[in-house]
Amino acid sequence: MPTTPSKFRDLASVRTIAVIGAGAIGSGWATYFLAKGFDVVVADPSPDAEARSRAYVAHAWPDMLAIGYTEAGSVPEARLRYVRSPAEAAGTADFIQENAPENRELKHTLLAEIDAAAPPDVIIASSTSGILPSELQRACRHPGRLVVGHPFNPPSHIPLVEVVGGQQTDPAAVAWSVDFYRYIGKYPIVLRREMVAHLANRLQAALIREAIYCLDEGVASADDIDAAVRMGPGLRWAFMGWQMIFRLAGSEGGTAYALDHMAKEIDGWFDSLGDVRLTPEVQKKLVDAGEEIARGRPAGEWIEFRDRKVTALLRLLHEEPRYPGD
Amino acid sequence: MPTTPSKFRDLASVRTIAVIGAGAIGSGWATYFLAKGFDVVVADPSPDAEARSRAYVAHAWPDMLAIGYTEAGSVPEARLRYVRSPAEAAGTADFIQENAPENRELKHTLLAEIDAAAPPDVIIASSTSGILPSELQRACRHPGRLVVGHPFNPPSHIPLVEVVGGQQTDPAAVAWSVDFYRYIGKYPIVLRREMVAHLANRLQAALIREAIYCLDEGVASADDIDAAVRMGPGLRWAFMGWQMIFRLAGSEGGTAYALDHMAKEIDGWFDSLGDVRLTPEVQKKLVDAGEEIARGRPAGEWIEFRDRKVTALLRLLHEEPRYPGD
Repeated sequence: MPTTPSKFRDLASVRTIAVIGAGAIGSGWATYFLAKGFDVVVADPSPDAEARSRAYVAHAWPDMLAIGYTEAGSVPEARLRYVRSPAEAAGTADFIQENAPENRELKHTLLAEIDAAAPPDVIIASSTSGILPSELQRACRHPGRLVVGHPFNPPSHIPLVEVVGGQQTDPAAVAWSVDFYRYIGKYPIVLRREMVAHLANRLQAALIREAIYCLDEGVASADDIDAAVRMGPGLRWAFMGWQMIFRLAGSEGGTAYALDHMAKEIDGWFDSLGDVRLTPEVQKKLVDAGEEIARGRPAGEWIEFRDRKVTALLRLLHEEPRYPGD
Repeated sequence: MPTTPSKFRDLASVRTIAVIGAGAIGSGWATYFLAKGFDVVVADPSPDAEARSRAYVAHAWPDMLAIGYTEAGSVPEARLRYVRSPAEAAGTADFIQENAPENRELKHTLLAEIDAAAPPDVIIASSTSGILPSELQRACRHPGRLVVGHPFNPPSHIPLVEVVGGQQTDPAAVAWSVDFYRYIGKYPIVLRREMVAHLANRLQAALIREAIYCLDEGVASADDIDAAVRMGPGLRWAFMGWQMIFRLAGSEGGTAYALDHMAKEIDGWFDSLGDVRLTPEVQKKLVDAGEEIARGRPAGEWIEFRDRKVTALLRLLHEEPRYPGD
């Protein structure tokens, strides 16, 4: 464990984590924090939040065991508590993960409340995918300790967390968050500056924009456009980044050799990429495509499938070596 | 097995496949065709092609067994033959997979030779990633039987094959190729029209362009940009397309619900995406990034890693259900 000399709470002293918002993202985080041995207090104003969230945790728990995130055979209910008030949760926590709906006003109000209740040496991380940390921290009296800690769905399973500081974020808060997420077994990456949609969703959005363009142009069926990723490049992306794939295209000559032979052609590909926006017509095509690929099966069945496959995949990726040089 | 009434050779009668070009792609195809029980005759003009290619096949064979593509414990050498002349290979084959270097003139000369030697009821599929079938078939006296059958590296392992016809391609040749690839256990998808880079490489290129943009802008380290995919969305893309992921973001409400809540934001993401070309400065950054992420390990070690993980992943994906509704 790193010992970061810091104005923020010592990593090793973190016992209780506040999870603000008990939707799928909040409940996913709660599951993971529980798996890693923390006391978790979840705040959500909705009367049925606790029941839904506890069901989520119970359902995801066997995966935590299967992946190896925990050795506990059942949910440690004694370490999981639900409250209505975000201030109550924030006031007792050593770390705070906020997961409210993506609404700027709502987040401002909520973060002001959390910030007022939490001791100033406690880091507040927001799971926001769409709001910049500089915008969020305007609501705070202690903006220096606010970061974005953006997970991927389901956060109980997927390792990636994007850590982003805003204009007023203390660099030590970014460093603390990276250390903390790594310490608990997540895979944090750091954005050196704020960007719309952070980094991983930008990469996703670029692919999706081109896929929607091809769908709109009628280049292939919705099913085939989906399979173009999951039966091809998607199989490599699960364990290897695009830069390494490109480097291997140059074999022993590496990236330089690949560029010598392919740069002009790839620039031509870049030139040819399409653009599209979600007009009502395009949205209709997307809805129809969603029906086509769902094969009449309900979302729940697909979510089960996703979680089962992600679990098996993560077990696989945890086998040594996870990555050469790790 | 489908019985396509066709002017082309009956699927069930295919015994011998000609693989033109014995580089990594040709040798990958040869490995797969052998695994599936065909006689394979490989043509390559290089004197050391046979030795390198046989080594490739021998090295990949245990993976074919592990994935379940074959039950043969060792390479069936008696079914694998190497010749220098493409015409000799093409003249005896029931199906032809061409894998020459991505050079228009070379491919034109070669395809003219293959086309002249092969009976007109034999399909010629080109593995080209960058040349349109309409361009390729200009060299042929029987252009109707020429298609693109574009695989992903390594073609011995990865299921996806993109089938594309050109202006002069007989629709029956496209249908035959789809049937054939499916019959031998590949996952063919069909492009309804030619596009630069076909479909899957367009989707890759869109992601890579944005990633290079972020690298060029210094948004994150090369390693973190790579991890942004392999530790996050890449874990889902191995078994689920983006449309399903998006549909699940809407839970039981599906794509329509997700669009209602996110369309405006996603359009904003699309607006914000970057653009970049492979200038000398950008190429230098990419070469440096390639070094950074390679961690001083040679390409061979990374290729071993890739093939081991792809093999394990394909074993996993072949477990039932491969996809709900399959």
